Amino acid sequence: MLALLAVLLMAVPAIGQQAIFTSEGLASPQINEDNSVTFRIYAPKAVKVEVCGDFLVSDEGGWGSAGLTEDGHGVWSWTSAPLASELYSYAFVVDGLRMLDPSNVFLMRDVRSLMNIFIVPGERGALYSVNDVSHGTVSKVWYESESLGMSRRMTVYTPAGYEDSGSRRYPVLYLLHGMGGDEDAWMTLGRATQILDNLIAAGKAVPMIVVMPNGNAALPSAPGEGPDGLYQPITRPPKSMEGSYEASFLEIVRFVDSHYRTVRKAEDRAVAGLSMGGFHSFHISKQYPDTFGYVGLFSAAVRQLEDGTGVYADFDRKIARQFADGVELYYIAIGKDDFLYDENVRLRSYLDSHGYPYEYHESDGGHIWRNWRIYLTDFLQKIF
Amino acid sequence: MLALLAVLLMAVPAIGQQAIFTSEGLASPQINEDNSVTFRIYAPKAVKVEVCGDFLVSDEGGWGSAGLTEDGHGVWSWTSAPLASELYSYAFVVDGLRMLDPSNVFLMRDVRSLMNIFIVPGERGALYSVNDVSHGTVSKVWYESESLGMSRRMTVYTPAGYEDSGSRRYPVLYLLHGMGGDEDAWMTLGRATQILDNLIAAGKAVPMIVVMPNGNAALPSAPGEGPDGLYQPITRPPKSMEGSYEASFLEIVRFVDSHYRTVRKAEDRAVAGLSMGGFHSFHISKQYPDTFGYVGLFSAAVRQLEDGTGVYADFDRKIARQFADGVELYYIAIGKDDFLYDENVRLRSYLDSHGYPYEYHESDGGHIWRNWRIYLTDFLQKIF
Repeated sequence: MLALLAVLLMAVPAIGQQAIFTSEGLASPQINEDNSVTFRIYAPKAVKVEVCGDFLVSDEGGWGSAGLTEDGHGVWSWTSAPLASELYSYAFVVDGLRMLDPSNVFLMRDVRSLMNIFIVPGERGALYSVNDVSHGTVSKVWYESESLGMSRRMTVYTPAGYEDSGSRRYPVLYLLHGMGGDEDAWMTLGRATQILDNLIAAGKAVPMIVVMPNGNAALPSAPGEGPDGLYQPITRPPKSMEGSYEASFLEIVRFVDSHYRTVRKAEDRAVAGLSMGGFHSFHISKQYPDTFGYVGLFSAAVRQLEDGTGVYADFDRKIARQFADGVELYYIAIGKDDFLYDENVRLRSYLDSHGYPYEYHESDGGHIWRNWRIYLTDFLQKIF
Repeated sequence: MLALLAVLLMAVPAIGQQAIFTSEGLASPQINEDNSVTFRIYAPKAVKVEVCGDFLVSDEGGWGSAGLTEDGHGVWSWTSAPLASELYSYAFVVDGLRMLDPSNVFLMRDVRSLMNIFIVPGERGALYSVNDVSHGTVSKVWYESESLGMSRRMTVYTPAGYEDSGSRRYPVLYLLHGMGGDEDAWMTLGRATQILDNLIAAGKAVPMIVVMPNGNAALPSAPGEGPDGLYQPITRPPKSMEGSYEASFLEIVRFVDSHYRTVRKAEDRAVAGLSMGGFHSFHISKQYPDTFGYVGLFSAAVRQLEDGTGVYADFDRKIARQFADGVELYYIAIGKDDFLYDENVRLRSYLDSHGYPYEYHESDGGHIWRNWRIYLTDFLQKIF
């Protein structure tokens, strides 16, 4: 049996001789007892090795970098200061070439950037981790969009116990991504599966269905997951913020209401999104005022407060009707350094001047997933 | 609006200054009209750049490599010979350091190796691609294993139309991974979603439910997807081939039969797997002889033909009963160069000497995913 096991090791794809010069066997990243983190890479021919990541801040506010030092045997390393509990992202830069950590298979994609990740333990790290709690089901589901003329992919989370709860009906959150994102983004970059599982298990959020559609009206799915093949993702797909998606949104609601055991009432429906998804949530909730009782705008783009065409027509009248119908919660959250901060100041002035009630949360930082995970965590505890 | 769109571009995480020295903007890999493929990477400080991949064969039969040439401006490139239609894997090696292609976000993980992928068009490429056909639903589902003492994750494929087909019941294929694999492997490395969608849409396979559990009895899930956290995957997890998993397997069947609209008869159940998963299929189908009408052994490890303990006890009697009960299809496939070839010769001798019927397929090549995708494609057209 041992001989068989030994030989099965060979089932790992054999790669070229060069590939033995990787960092296999090195621990990287290594979370130390004081929550500092050590990064290592074997690069004997390198002249300069750096690590860049979101736990390092550059002068411009983006990812900073730190230089690794070589041990005389080709192993470069660097240890951070103790870090707060969080999910972090990073990559190496070897002689100017950005690359992933060969010792770490865990990564996320943001548009066309791949980044390694790690979790520093503690309260927030636990919230973003898979814990020994009951888990919901995550499905990739296709629906037909007549108005957009294609089959389109969405992610659907059903909470633990859904399959065994007979005829019980659940509230639904529609959770929308930002520009350059897709139906996978909230589950990967946003850790929504883990946040939902953990909050529901702790009794801090009610069991709910969460629907994450694709908000790029010209695209069927995330890159590589549709009939448009394996293409280089683009940051700004066409037809992202011109009304087609918002106008098609009830197709998604009808699909969900006819395929899942939902409560089909506004007080059991929420729509929330980040950045472009906040823009979508803003206009969708106003366009269909008796549909969504809860609205979440996370670092939202809040343009089109003047009359436009289609879903952007009749702004004042539509938002007046939305609030006249009663909104259980109109939730706005943004970071102090967000480039969309002024947009949100303007929105709040408008709401204030009309006496429309809302809840406002201002955080540190800018237009980043760390903030969106925090806003989601807060919002989930306030709906339904 | 354009100003907003421009500024939304900044939502992509800003990375260190170093990161501007990447290959963004380069087309790589570029599939040319004659199905040759050009690889490019911007690496101005590199001395030697190679591409290694499964379309290049080394003297040892593993991945070979080819050297790129530099254009005087830091861009290295190399063009392959025209390639047969297939899904291929590759990586770059820059001055001895293995790295992914910065221009290609599409990749697969095999144990702890990350590899870029591309598809060369044609018949097989189309089979492995997402096409404009009806798509099944792919779900990540957790079940409770009493015998293994933990919640465990599985992947479940339900065919297009399942949700809208009322009380219609479907046959079920249990599809098992190899050592070092997990419940994600058949869907990522094996392209099972695409193969199923395409064969079912073409009427070449019947609509079926496909269940892909995790075959490592000591583990709850794929690395990073369970409460064991973000750890470095290992090739040989404990309790992989010592009987625990096979002995627990009816828990999975019961879960599936009670949560999906299945036909609960042997003639509508199949079990198939690759390598270790073939070993599991071999023993599971014999242990529960009235449960599976179809058995697929793809490059299977076929040890334990002598009496052992537990599920490995009473070999002759159990397999005699399995074939006495009637097996619709006992399917064996292996490559000429597979390191488990002799095991399969021995199994066939045993089956021949006892007059147990089976179907045998011998392909070129060895213990590789390319072969397992082909075996799956063939097997799917012969069951139910």
